[in-house]
Amino acid sequence: MISVVLLGTGNLGSHLIKAFHKSKKVKLLQVYSRTQFALDQINKKIPTTTDPSCLVNADIYVLAISDTGIKSLANKLILKNKLVVHTSGTIGLDFLINHKRKGVFYPLQTFSKTDSLKFKKIPICIEADLEEDRLILLKLAKSISKKVYEIDSEQRKKLHLAAVFVNNFANHLYRLGENICVENKVDFKLLYPLIRQTATKIKTISPLEAQTGPARRGDSKTIENQRTQLAGTELDLYTLFTKSILQTYEQEL
Amino acid sequence: MISVVLLGTGNLGSHLIKAFHKSKKVKLLQVYSRTQFALDQINKKIPTTTDPSCLVNADIYVLAISDTGIKSLANKLILKNKLVVHTSGTIGLDFLINHKRKGVFYPLQTFSKTDSLKFKKIPICIEADLEEDRLILLKLAKSISKKVYEIDSEQRKKLHLAAVFVNNFANHLYRLGENICVENKVDFKLLYPLIRQTATKIKTISPLEAQTGPARRGDSKTIENQRTQLAGTELDLYTLFTKSILQTYEQEL
Repeated sequence: MISVVLLGTGNLGSHLIKAFHKSKKVKLLQVYSRTQFALDQINKKIPTTTDPSCLVNADIYVLAISDTGIKSLANKLILKNKLVVHTSGTIGLDFLINHKRKGVFYPLQTFSKTDSLKFKKIPICIEADLEEDRLILLKLAKSISKKVYEIDSEQRKKLHLAAVFVNNFANHLYRLGENICVENKVDFKLLYPLIRQTATKIKTISPLEAQTGPARRGDSKTIENQRTQLAGTELDLYTLFTKSILQTYEQEL
Repeated sequence: MISVVLLGTGNLGSHLIKAFHKSKKVKLLQVYSRTQFALDQINKKIPTTTDPSCLVNADIYVLAISDTGIKSLANKLILKNKLVVHTSGTIGLDFLINHKRKGVFYPLQTFSKTDSLKFKKIPICIEADLEEDRLILLKLAKSISKKVYEIDSEQRKKLHLAAVFVNNFANHLYRLGENICVENKVDFKLLYPLIRQTATKIKTISPLEAQTGPARRGDSKTIENQRTQLAGTELDLYTLFTKSILQTYEQEL
């Protein structure tokens, strides 16, 4: 049984609270948040605090807070020889510099408070300075997920960058698609099966092979026609994507 | 029972052959392809031809071929008072100008020959000039799909444009994400659950609300850091997406 203190009740924090609380291999001893209001929203059975100097003894302290807040909160924690980890994809171990035993516990997923997510299938990327801490992190990660990976800071940074492309930017494309539908009184729902299939397809064929569309075919007539229907940033994105796809496949065309 | 002649054995054509052949409400009378080789790949029970002047009598002739080939093939068909439809998202009814009875049968999905797809869930957008043809198309579409929409040429054009964003461009983002992983020796599979969740999320919250990431938060430190890790078209895309997302949410930041 690993005992945990969780700091943060945001999008990720609220999901981790549920996952740790549910796991039989974890004892969630305490949850910290800056505000009492946030703590009032969580399971009443879990002890809470708004004072970072009042944390109870635990095997591991998990900081599930935004990148910008990690350094300052980590500096406030008066913990002797305790393992402190953050959950960020972008920052290194050095943000926890005042803690001798430090690590990273990075679940690679997009979290909204309202989502229902199964942690078992979410990849968790771990990293630790010390061997004993690596083993604790491994155990903690495996207690809630079947997909645990040991990834160093440099790789994690790149993984997060790739995630920005496939998640944040893809979602923005959905937004632009929705805009086009709304402006032309077409139900955006018509695109759901296509969006789903595009995202599913890559499991069986690589995105390089899966590519279709006017740019992939070098269909300059359709490309020109579609460009005339766009303006502003949408046109700029259309042009840049077309260029990038044409470049990728130019030898085949 | 609607009798159908299908022209084309490409990505869409091969899926339509299966769907029509399977449907109890459709009699697939004949399949046309330019090459015998293509016809050799399909179900042996279905009559075939490579001669567009040798088509049998049917209620409807479905041209499942590329946009660039539609006009010329349609002109070759010697059919008197027969309903001829194409399956393109981008072109209008005028491409079938030599046929009095014409329409569109546009399944909104991305098709690869190797995919296993359930046609029942694929939206089919139909359009016809004449009321009696509209009813035939409606019946044909409903015989293989539960999601049938009547969409005019202008709306279909916009829908196809939106599809280019959410399918073709999103897939290219997956490709760029895969590139980043491969270059840094990280398994691209780690991103599958994230890609899936991003695509699924929009069914419950709109992409406008679902947006997360550095640009959404106005996190200029992470943005600058990630920009330094990129070059060329990838950097251009990162910059343009960041600008577009910042613009979308600027009033909130």
